[in-house]
Amino acid sequence: MNDSRFSRRGLIGAGLAAAGAGVGAVAGVAGSAAATGVDPFTADANGDESIDLSQSVPFYATAARQPQGGIRTTPQRHCVFMVFDLTASTATELQVLLARWSAAIAQLQAGRTIGSVEPAHGDGVGADTGEALDLGPASLTVTVGLGPGVFDERFGLAAKRPAHLAAIPALPSDTLDEQLTGGDLSLQACADDPQVAYHAVRDLARMARGTATVRWTVIGFGRASAGPTQSTPRNLMGFKDGTRNITTDDEYDRFVWLDDDAGWMAGGSYQVVRKIRMNLETWDADVVSDQQRVFGRTKVEGAPLSGGSEHTAPDFHARAPHGTEGGTAIDARSHVALAAHENNGGVKILRRGYNYTDGLNQYGQLDAGLLFAAYVNDPEHFTTLQRKLGASDRLNEYVSHIGSGVFAVPPAPRKGSYVGEQLFH
Amino acid sequence: MNDSRFSRRGLIGAGLAAAGAGVGAVAGVAGSAAATGVDPFTADANGDESIDLSQSVPFYATAARQPQGGIRTTPQRHCVFMVFDLTASTATELQVLLARWSAAIAQLQAGRTIGSVEPAHGDGVGADTGEALDLGPASLTVTVGLGPGVFDERFGLAAKRPAHLAAIPALPSDTLDEQLTGGDLSLQACADDPQVAYHAVRDLARMARGTATVRWTVIGFGRASAGPTQSTPRNLMGFKDGTRNITTDDEYDRFVWLDDDAGWMAGGSYQVVRKIRMNLETWDADVVSDQQRVFGRTKVEGAPLSGGSEHTAPDFHARAPHGTEGGTAIDARSHVALAAHENNGGVKILRRGYNYTDGLNQYGQLDAGLLFAAYVNDPEHFTTLQRKLGASDRLNEYVSHIGSGVFAVPPAPRKGSYVGEQLFH
Ligand code: HEM
Ligand code: HEM
Repeated sequence: MNDSRFSRRGLIGAGLAAAGAGVGAVAGVAGSAAATGVDPFTADANGDESIDLSQSVPFYATAARQPQGGIRTTPQRHCVFMVFDLTASTATELQVLLARWSAAIAQLQAGRTIGSVEPAHGDGVGADTGEALDLGPASLTVTVGLGPGVFDERFGLAAKRPAHLAAIPALPSDTLDEQLTGGDLSLQACADDPQVAYHAVRDLARMARGTATVRWTVIGFGRASAGPTQSTPRNLMGFKDGTRNITTDDEYDRFVWLDDDAGWMAGGSYQVVRKIRMNLETWDADVVSDQQRVFGRTKVEGAPLSGGSEHTAPDFHARAPHGTEGGTAIDARSHVALAAHENNGGVKILRRGYNYTDGLNQYGQLDAGLLFAAYVNDPEHFTTLQRKLGASDRLNEYVSHIGSGVFAVPPAPRKGSYVGEQLFH
Repeated sequence: MNDSRFSRRGLIGAGLAAAGAGVGAVAGVAGSAAATGVDPFTADANGDESIDLSQSVPFYATAARQPQGGIRTTPQRHCVFMVFDLTASTATELQVLLARWSAAIAQLQAGRTIGSVEPAHGDGVGADTGEALDLGPASLTVTVGLGPGVFDERFGLAAKRPAHLAAIPALPSDTLDEQLTGGDLSLQACADDPQVAYHAVRDLARMARGTATVRWTVIGFGRASAGPTQSTPRNLMGFKDGTRNITTDDEYDRFVWLDDDAGWMAGGSYQVVRKIRMNLETWDADVVSDQQRVFGRTKVEGAPLSGGSEHTAPDFHARAPHGTEGGTAIDARSHVALAAHENNGGVKILRRGYNYTDGLNQYGQLDAGLLFAAYVNDPEHFTTLQRKLGASDRLNEYVSHIGSGVFAVPPAPRKGSYVGEQLFH
C-alpha cells in the first residue's frame, strides 16, 4: 500500500514524522466511533498513498457537548462549501429545515440515500438525485453553521444569539465580493470522494427550496491542513500548509470548543470562512528565496528559516546572515512571524483549509486559491490576526480575500434531535 | 478494504458483475507496465472503495504504434483538461514545446518533479511549482493532442495533417461559447488525486509561455465512464454512464486506434471533447419515470427499459405496454436508442467522460455538467452521431453543448523521442 518507490515523497526522501503528539479522542465520540470501527478523530482516512472509501463518520452525538463532525475530523480530501440566505419568514420554517437537514445528513454520513431515488414505477420525483448511489460513505461529514442573520429581527431568536456571533468587520486589504460574502446558513461537506461531497450539498440545497436560496459556494480539493497522523499537505503556492496547527485536547478546549458558559452552544464552535484568491502567475514568476521569505519557511521541507526541520519550533529572534525586515532569519513581516501564537499573546486558531480552482479568469489566468476555514471559540481571534496580516503580511502581494462568512456551529444533536433544536424551546 | 457494510452499494445490493470480457493488454505496453508492477490497461487503480495513489503509468512506448496513456488507461478519478492557442510563428518553437512537454510528462507520470522546486539557496525561479511534491504518481496520465490549427499555413506542416482532422462543423442544438471552442493543442491530465492532475497542467502551461496561451479549461471529477474491472460510475443526472462502452481489443482496433494507413499517426487516435452543461434544477424536478424514458434505462440499476439487468443488451424492438414514441419499451427518441451502434450502422465510439462543476451560475443555480471526451479513429463517427442526437434526443431538453474541440492524438513516443516528433522530419 505504502509502496513509495515511485512517489515524489520517495524520491525526495522527506521521511516525515507524524505530528501526532498527545492526540486523544474526546470522550463519547470515541464510543460511537468504535461502533462503526472508525475513529473519526485519529483514523487516517486519507492514508498518505491510499484512500479507503468505505469509512463512515457518525453524525449523532452520544454524549453532551459533543461537536459536529468536520471540525476535528481528520481532514478529508474534498470539500464543498455552500452558503444560503433564508427566505423564510418564520422560526418554524427554519426549525423544519434544520430538522430535515439533520435527518438527511445522518443518512448521508452513513452512506445511505436521503430517500427514494426511483419511486415505485418511477412515478414521482426522486427524493435523492442518485449520483452517489454506488459510492461509499467516503468519510463524509456535513457541518451546519448558523449565520448572524438567524438571530436578527426576522425569527424572534435574538435572545439565543451566540455571544460572539457578529458579521466580520471590514479588514485591511479586503477586496471582498459582495456575492461571496455573508449568508444565513452554511454547509461544509467534506469527503474523500468529490461526488459524495457534491451530492450531499446538492440534495441538501434541494431540500432548502422555499426556505433558503443559495448565496455562494466554493468547491475545494487537496486539503490544505493535515490531521495528526497525516503528513502535511501543500497549498497551491507549493508550501506545506498546516504544520503548526491545533492538535491536542488541551488546545481544542482552550481555542476551539465553546464551554458551558456558552449555554446551548456548549461543545460547539465558530466557523470563519474566507475565499482567498492567489495570484499564481505572479507567484510562480517569483524567485524561491523570495517565496521563502514571504512565508518564513523553506519550500521543499517546510522548515522555519531559523533552522531545523519541519517540526522544529521557529525562533523569531534568531539573527539573519544578511538583511531582512527586522534583521531576523525569519522576516518580521513574513506570514508565520505575524501569525504565530508566540507573537499574538498565545492565541491559536484551528485552520482547516482546502485548495480551490475556478478554472481561468477573464484574463486567461489560473483562477485558484485557498478556501480558508478557521474554527475558533471567538471569531475575534481571527479578526485580530487578520487585521494584522492584512496590514503587514508579505503574502498580501500575492493573495486577495474575495469572500467571507462567519457562522456559529452548534454541537452535534443526539439521535431523535437535530442541529440547533435548543434554539426553538 | 472492500468492506461495504456502510456503503450505498452495500445497501442497495447491486452486486455488479465486472464487464471485463476479453480485455488483453496491447503488446509492448504490457511489457513496460510489468516493469513497474502496474498494468495501466487492466489494473483497477480506482478499486471501487479504495484508491492506491502509489501507482504509476509509463509514458514512453516500448513498441511501435503504441498509444498514449489516458485513452485505454483505466479511468482515473480526476481530470484537468486544458486547451491552448499557439502564439508561436515557427515550427521549431512548436517542436521545442512538444519535446519539453514530453520530457516533463515522463517525469510527472513517474511521480517526479519536472525540475528543481527550490534552486540552490532558493535563488532563481523554481522549475516546478511544488504543490504535488509529497503526493504519489496517482496513476497520472497526460495525453497530448494537436488541433487543426497546427496544420494551417503558420507552420508549414499542412502536408502532415492527419487525414480526418478538421474543425467539428456546427451541429443541431449547439449553443457553443466561442471562448470554450477550438484550440491548437490539448492536454488531458487524469489522475486519482486532483492536485496531481492540476499540478501537471499548471506546470505544463507555464512551460508553454511565449509559445502558447491558455484558451479554455475544464476541471473534471467523478469519472463518468468505467474501466473493465470497475463498476459503472454515475453522471450528475444520477444515471450510470459507461455501461455500453468499448472494451475489447477488437473494438479498440476497429473504432479507436489509427492503423498503418495513418502513417506517422498509426497507433494514435482522435479526441473529440464537448463541454456539456446540464440544467440540473429542471432535471431534478422531473419525475423519475420521465428521466428513465429520456435515457431508455432505469435509474438505480441502469437496466434497459426493454428488461433485464444493467448488462442485458437493449431490445429496441420490444413493444411497450403503454405508448412511447415508436410504441417501443425503449422510446425511439431516448438517448440510448438514438446512440446505440445497432441503430448507427454498427459504429461505436469510446467515451471517457468526467463530471464537472463550475459552482453557481449568474442565477444562483448549480452550474455543472459533463466533460464529454470521445476517442475515435474518425471524428466523423462523433459528428454523425451528434447530428442525430442534437436533432432528436429527449436529453436535449436538459443539456446544452457549450464547448467543443477536436484533436489528433499521436502515438506515444519512444524514450529519447517526443510526442509528434515525426511531424518535423
Ligand atoms: C492564501 C492565504 C494563506 C496561505 C497561502 C497561508 C499559508 C500558510 C503557510 C504555508 C503556513 C506555514 C505552515 C503552517 O504552520 O501551517 C501558514 C501558517 C499559518 N497561517 Fe496561514 N496562510 C494563508 C492565510 C492565513 C490567514 C487568513 C490566517 C489567519 C488570519 C492564517 C493563519 C496562519 C497561522 C496562525 C499559521 C501558523 C503560524 C505559526 O504558528 O507558525 N493564514 N499559513
Ligand atoms: C450530458 C450529456 C450526456 C449524458 C448525460 C449521457 C449519458 C448517457 C447514459 C446515461 C448512457 C447509458 C449508459 C451507457 O451505456 O453508458 C449513455 C449512452 C451512450 N451515450 Fe451518452 N450521454 C451524453 C452525451 C452523449 C454524446 C454527446 C454522445 C455522442 C455524440 C453520447 C453517446 C452515447 C453512446 C454511444 C452511448 C451508448 C448507447 C448504447 O450503445 O446503448 N452521449 N449516455
